[in-house]
Amino acid sequence: VDSAEIIAVGTELLTPIRLDTNSLWLTGELADLGITVRAKHVVGDDRADLAAAVRQSLDRVDLVMTTGGLGPTHDDITREVVAEILERPLVEDAGVLEGIRERFARRRRPMPEINRRQAMVPVGGLVLANAHGTAPGLWLEANGRVIVLLPGPPRELQPMFSRHVRPKLADRSAPSRTSRRVVLVAGRAESQVAEAVEPLQARFRDRPDPVAMTILASPGRIELHLRATGADGSAREAALEAAAAAVVEVLGAAVVSTDGQSLEAVVGQRLADRGWTIAVAESCTGGLVTGLLTDVPGSSAWVRGGVVAYANTVKVDQLGVDAGTLAAEGAVSEAVARAMAEGVRARLEADVGLAITGIAGPGGGTPDKPVGTVAIALSGPREVARTFHFGGDRQMVRQFSTAAALDMVRRAIDPT
Amino acid sequence: VDSAEIIAVGTELLTPIRLDTNSLWLTGELADLGITVRAKHVVGDDRADLAAAVRQSLDRVDLVMTTGGLGPTHDDITREVVAEILERPLVEDAGVLEGIRERFARRRRPMPEINRRQAMVPVGGLVLANAHGTAPGLWLEANGRVIVLLPGPPRELQPMFSRHVRPKLADRSAPSRTSRRVVLVAGRAESQVAEAVEPLQARFRDRPDPVAMTILASPGRIELHLRATGADGSAREAALEAAAAAVVEVLGAAVVSTDGQSLEAVVGQRLADRGWTIAVAESCTGGLVTGLLTDVPGSSAWVRGGVVAYANTVKVDQLGVDAGTLAAEGAVSEAVARAMAEGVRARLEADVGLAITGIAGPGGGTPDKPVGTVAIALSGPREVARTFHFGGDRQMVRQFSTAAALDMVRRAIDPT
Repeated sequence: VDSAEIIAVGTELLTPIRLDTNSLWLTGELADLGITVRAKHVVGDDRADLAAAVRQSLDRVDLVMTTGGLGPTHDDITREVVAEILERPLVEDAGVLEGIRERFARRRRPMPEINRRQAMVPVGGLVLANAHGTAPGLWLEANGRVIVLLPGPPRELQPMFSRHVRPKLADRSAPSRTSRRVVLVAGRAESQVAEAVEPLQARFRDRPDPVAMTILASPGRIELHLRATGADGSAREAALEAAAAAVVEVLGAAVVSTDGQSLEAVVGQRLADRGWTIAVAESCTGGLVTGLLTDVPGSSAWVRGGVVAYANTVKVDQLGVDAGTLAAEGAVSEAVARAMAEGVRARLEADVGLAITGIAGPGGGTPDKPVGTVAIALSGPREVARTFHFGGDRQMVRQFSTAAALDMVRRAIDPT
Repeated sequence: VDSAEIIAVGTELLTPIRLDTNSLWLTGELADLGITVRAKHVVGDDRADLAAAVRQSLDRVDLVMTTGGLGPTHDDITREVVAEILERPLVEDAGVLEGIRERFARRRRPMPEINRRQAMVPVGGLVLANAHGTAPGLWLEANGRVIVLLPGPPRELQPMFSRHVRPKLADRSAPSRTSRRVVLVAGRAESQVAEAVEPLQARFRDRPDPVAMTILASPGRIELHLRATGADGSAREAALEAAAAAVVEVLGAAVVSTDGQSLEAVVGQRLADRGWTIAVAESCTGGLVTGLLTDVPGSSAWVRGGVVAYANTVKVDQLGVDAGTLAAEGAVSEAVARAMAEGVRARLEADVGLAITGIAGPGGGTPDKPVGTVAIALSGPREVARTFHFGGDRQMVRQFSTAAALDMVRRAIDPT
């Protein structure tokens, strides 16, 4: 088995509110096994459409996986359509039926007659137990092809795949030929990163163990996804290591991590290494920076807390910002950001104080200080203050500000 | 035009890191026009695979849309593959070429020779201008079918569709036959909502203007998506109105909004209506609650700010929580939550004080107060305190806590 197609079944996946995300997870699992996904499809609960999709996929690849359509209702057609294509009669499986009955009995409810349909198994099919639902999966083989039917809910699909499908596929596929790594970059625009990395992309594409580099950008954070291909696992790892090192060489301190660690986790690690604590004063980010820092498990060791000073009087009363400075410089200024950072550091008895004050919009901008103007300051290990001009809407300005603030802390604390 | 298939082109969309999200947006736009998406596909940058997908879609539906593969490199094959299928020669379009040249000239860069490929247009094809990139789109017609080629980046695709494709499709499709509405529910489990709504689902499915109800759950917030179908727009709106009213009847005050407003926006609206302000004291949510409230545009009118009291001494020093209470009852207790709410309300001079203190995990749980134990209190309009026991991991506990806290404020302030 080396190539696959995934068919998601369900009319709800063809509405504007639901996306097939199972295929993303399955693609990652299959990639680990060295199996390439050649195409993905979504079809509704329609016999003809599903049958056409399955037949066409069977013509092209040696593994076809379907997700969804294994429930008990008449809309759930996957089992029957696949049985028909393979010309295998469906037979009631006593063991499966018993399992479904027991599942209902444990909840003290009788099994509805309709659920009997889920015990129908195509002759020669192998039943895959579902630890989290009534719909069993199926593994079928025909003409050198493997067909796997999985349930739609991720909490049923993922354990079923991991326990029952993955080991069987591993036996039939060549060892994996790809390894991956993520390099996280902060404080650079996507175009800057793209330009800096472009020569590396060419260089590493043409090596004996080639490394492909893909850029994924979100406001303030850019991920470089490195993918090495080759027969030898340690050669792939060496290639990834070399590629990551080359990225660090061209981007320098803008590289946050080469091992998938988030910006907030790296900040936390550096604080923890020094035994330092942090306190945050936020205006336009309204709690997002502290929210991200406290997202890191164990952050109570190095986060003291913070003050969200949205109103100006809160900046004065709770952070000790001088009312005169506030009036003279304006709430969005490096002077006020400095005072907020110093105030939150002193009052919350932290080693590091961080402050963010800015105009996220849509209102509040002036010709002098348009929407997107944000002042960020640091107090403690170093005294730093900087004014940024971010583009985008309210949410983007808040995200850019959050990333820039965390990155300022990261850069101020050298790794031990 | 009444049925469509969407084909996303790009090998990167077959990796574990990228999902085709354009089709979700396009599905919504097409639904507005009364056009049903029958299937969606993702294929790599492979001529044979793309050609097979386009041919098969043309057999089934009268509108085929492709996204991606219109760039200048040799990996960008969509234009050529479609021209070949339709047997239309590609001809260089002087106007398009001039447009691309100008785009580079504005950035003071010469046009790379490779970008000439983007000026190739199949004979009879209509060029769709791209206001945000070099890749023009294409509109083609053949044998009663419409084929539309759109660029991959959403910021290029969406305006191109809205300006050039949507009006042309509107001329050729029957008026829309569906209308949608979202009912937001808080403070109930998904299974409770499902059970309560089940009889309504049957009742509204069988009406002359049927309304379908789909449940989408995330921690602490449940969305009921209502979709009415029928020829008459005002009958559809009336059916939606009746269905929303029926949901409100069975779920009562658990319904946050029937017009798509978020929980935080509803809270803000109720505060604004009374002329009240809020201040938030957060422990385990670490700033997320204040972060969400300040996400609402104009929130500076009713958010004073907040204190993230992660460390216990911050609870004492910044919020005036009694150290004795803290020692006797523990940081996660209704008594401490009450004191935090009262403290933040008084110190930040707000009308409403809200406090959250809990154990998000993974560490910190005890037999007495396991991970997921969260105390939430309100001070001001009413004095309320409640202890919750949430399931799930750290992130889920934080999300459940955030929703429960906002919902407590919403329920405490009657609508005007």
